[in-house]
Amino acid sequence: MSKEEVVLLGCWVSPFCMRVKIALNEKGIEYEDREEDLFGGKSELLLNSNPIHKKVPVLLHYGKPLSESTIIVGYIDETWASPPLLPSCAYGRAKARFWADFIDKKLHDAGAQIWRTNGEEREVGTRDFIEILKQLEEALGERNYFGGEGDAFGFVDIIAIGMASWFPAYEKFGGFKVEDHCPKLSGWIKRCKQRESVRKVLPDPEKVYEFLVMFRKMQGLD
Amino acid sequence: MSKEEVVLLGCWVSPFCMRVKIALNEKGIEYEDREEDLFGGKSELLLNSNPIHKKVPVLLHYGKPLSESTIIVGYIDETWASPPLLPSCAYGRAKARFWADFIDKKLHDAGAQIWRTNGEEREVGTRDFIEILKQLEEALGERNYFGGEGDAFGFVDIIAIGMASWFPAYEKFGGFKVEDHCPKLSGWIKRCKQRESVRKVLPDPEKVYEFLVMFRKMQGLD
Repeated sequence: MSKEEVVLLGCWVSPFCMRVKIALNEKGIEYEDREEDLFGGKSELLLNSNPIHKKVPVLLHYGKPLSESTIIVGYIDETWASPPLLPSCAYGRAKARFWADFIDKKLHDAGAQIWRTNGEEREVGTRDFIEILKQLEEALGERNYFGGEGDAFGFVDIIAIGMASWFPAYEKFGGFKVEDHCPKLSGWIKRCKQRESVRKVLPDPEKVYEFLVMFRKMQGLD
Repeated sequence: MSKEEVVLLGCWVSPFCMRVKIALNEKGIEYEDREEDLFGGKSELLLNSNPIHKKVPVLLHYGKPLSESTIIVGYIDETWASPPLLPSCAYGRAKARFWADFIDKKLHDAGAQIWRTNGEEREVGTRDFIEILKQLEEALGERNYFGGEGDAFGFVDIIAIGMASWFPAYEKFGGFKVEDHCPKLSGWIKRCKQRESVRKVLPDPEKVYEFLVMFRKMQGLD
């Protein structure tokens, strides 16, 4: 497969784009990574490819556009069979989709309640965020990965680990350590980061923090 | 299949529960319909089966619980093959999931901005709601159904049509007619309602309206 056949319109700091990159890496698919300038103006290709949400990531496969990261990761899994990211049984797939949906609905917004706020609002946001992490940790249990199939790295891990690249920034803003509240989840993050598919995608935590500090200044929060 | 093998914990007025019922009807699966008393207290079975969200619908298949309606409909499609609800190609499935996701993210909340508000807030909500309907109508285009496969009734139709059972109430609260703004979508609603799988699930619009009027009173909005 030539790189022109799979093109990603993305942004380095977006956890949603990281998901798509990690899924493609897991499958061993080469792709062209086109960085969008989200502040300087989105490309015509992005706007035409995702006219409803006008957001990254967009994956172009032979020029056909796909959007919404969780849906794109599902498409990647269905299009390139090996290694499988979702379980082989329908019930396992439904459970994996449940946790992906939980992460989509809860985790990013809860994190925003830490880094986009101040004072008491941030304290409440930090407590809520830790509660959500504890629910995730309980779902992980004693396993190495959320899976995927059995104990293997898979769909839910990919949906969650991009989000985890922002955790060090949340920790700084919120004054807490994920490890102190959720040691098993913390171990899971470390295991994921040892995978090449993940390591070459996740940005330097310091750069994510600087990005969020800059964003806060732009929004007049500091 | 005996009825005990498929049990739905649901509520007659919930568009999310209607989805599950319609999907089971399309597949010709008999099920036990257990109505939850959402105001009087949720059942222990519901709370134990969906400890994260504590919401209907929950589908129990041989006692194994599934929650989140869009995920349940996907499970039903994967578990009982005929007739297929999602397209057979990965790209078609991703597009169907995109529109299901759009409906999940936009339509119910936009409707709430009509019936849970008053005055200017309601006027803004009504305008926003109609814009979302127009996006859906554009996605429908000249087809009979959103599909599914080709022009057949399928996944996106099931996700959307339960929501449409609340449209007559929104029309009353917001003082508008869906037909005046979206004639093709209005035609699609009529076509869907002619299907037995849908007709025997969708409640009397007047009862939905009365339910929402009662809910508004409980919330001190009237």
